[in-house]
Amino acid sequence: MDRQYLIEQIRRRRSFLCVGLDTDLAKLPRPVLEQQDEEPLFAFNRAVIDATAPYCVAYKPNFAFYERFGLQGWQALERTVEYLRERCPDHFLIADAKRGDIGNTAAMYARGIYEEMGFHAATVAPYMGRDSVEPFLEYRDRWTVLLALTSNPGSRDFQFQPGADGGMLYESVLRRSQEWADEGQLMYVVGATQGERFREVRRLAPRHFLLVPGVGAQGGSLEDVCRHGMTQDCGLLVNSSRGIIYASQGDDFASAAGHAARELQEQMAGMMDKYM
Amino acid sequence: MDRQYLIEQIRRRRSFLCVGLDTDLAKLPRPVLEQQDEEPLFAFNRAVIDATAPYCVAYKPNFAFYERFGLQGWQALERTVEYLRERCPDHFLIADAKRGDIGNTAAMYARGIYEEMGFHAATVAPYMGRDSVEPFLEYRDRWTVLLALTSNPGSRDFQFQPGADGGMLYESVLRRSQEWADEGQLMYVVGATQGERFREVRRLAPRHFLLVPGVGAQGGSLEDVCRHGMTQDCGLLVNSSRGIIYASQGDDFASAAGHAARELQEQMAGMMDKYM
Repeated sequence: MDRQYLIEQIRRRRSFLCVGLDTDLAKLPRPVLEQQDEEPLFAFNRAVIDATAPYCVAYKPNFAFYERFGLQGWQALERTVEYLRERCPDHFLIADAKRGDIGNTAAMYARGIYEEMGFHAATVAPYMGRDSVEPFLEYRDRWTVLLALTSNPGSRDFQFQPGADGGMLYESVLRRSQEWADEGQLMYVVGATQGERFREVRRLAPRHFLLVPGVGAQGGSLEDVCRHGMTQDCGLLVNSSRGIIYASQGDDFASAAGHAARELQEQMAGMMDKYM
Repeated sequence: MDRQYLIEQIRRRRSFLCVGLDTDLAKLPRPVLEQQDEEPLFAFNRAVIDATAPYCVAYKPNFAFYERFGLQGWQALERTVEYLRERCPDHFLIADAKRGDIGNTAAMYARGIYEEMGFHAATVAPYMGRDSVEPFLEYRDRWTVLLALTSNPGSRDFQFQPGADGGMLYESVLRRSQEWADEGQLMYVVGATQGERFREVRRLAPRHFLLVPGVGAQGGSLEDVCRHGMTQDCGLLVNSSRGIIYASQGDDFASAAGHAARELQEQMAGMMDKYM
């Protein structure tokens, strides 16, 4: 999915919502756990996807939640991606795997995510530098979403390390990586909890899409993110996971997820009118 | 497996060799590919394990090589770990997955690797900071192997970024992480290609075990690593992948892998006499 098409989807749906499929078995509503005839992670995802698809432009399963169950989890992940590809051909599919390894190994991760599973995008960790990212960028029709400034408390430990050139580590990541690819292929993860930093990020990456976790459970503000981060092409994919997928623990879990997604979509439409 | 037991194994086997099971289907010898009745990645691994077990103290499958094949790859990975746990109960088993995510998500990765699959150790990326590493450290009887100074050319991009306190990023990683856990639970990845840096690493982490990739195909020198990095407890696990597992493309692939591992073990025994 290319940049122009993604922007069209955002305009058409008046949404830049990404639904995070961080599906935790321990948090599944009883009705899903009680049905016997289907693998619960997939059954839950399918219901959530059906209910939220009209209100979002992207889905992002986080691999950890599936790997945690080994083979069975991978099966649920693969079924989820298959279902998304069939059911939501216009949605942007992000593998939230945060992979990073030396060149020949990174190439294996990229192949698995893009070719084997058919994701449009993969999150990638920058610590190992250029040759750990380039194998992802070699897929010219796919996206690399590089961690820049994450939403968690630990982001303070290294990402703000000040460098010799006056910039911080996350700024070096933004600068350096733009030598490797342009905004047609590269996005950045910037946490919503970093509200005031969005201005600096935009100075260094004025046109890149930012994938923004941390609205909702982690406490980030949608308004701040949009005020400082939105561009004329939108330039944002704002992720919500727990706030949507666990909106209700009852029989109505899917419709509650749909409502939660719709509420966010309506807020987003307002932001697009205001800041785009 | 605790520190003392690992050190005993190293002394007993006169080896600090870790065999990297970076098993690439495209590089498998014809005899393995031609046999019809078994999954080739696992069949290859089993033969290599049988041949190399006497000469090494650790095995390290790199997850990328399995994930690349999706579900089928995971099956091969799980069978490999199961086989290792049965066949090699005294060997140290490292999940080379280089994971890193926010706290609740990192906990899922840790659970999958330690509980579901039964590895003793996992490689973890430091970019996201403390709360992305701690869920691994919460398993007190398991090991976290944090990326510090990697073996690839891209290590220059960010790991050497000089910080305000005069140290570089990898030095901050070494320093900070020691506030989170001690050498009974924490190891560091330091690439063999960084030969002259081992002295500085040892100044900051005098007792920690270092997992050292990059000897062999990547050009690192075992002698340099040992001269600058070995401690009185050894303190090193030196990994070799390609040099061992692809030692021959013929019918003799397994015995060739055994020979290659034995050669390294003999060099290592010499280094232990010289530097330990």
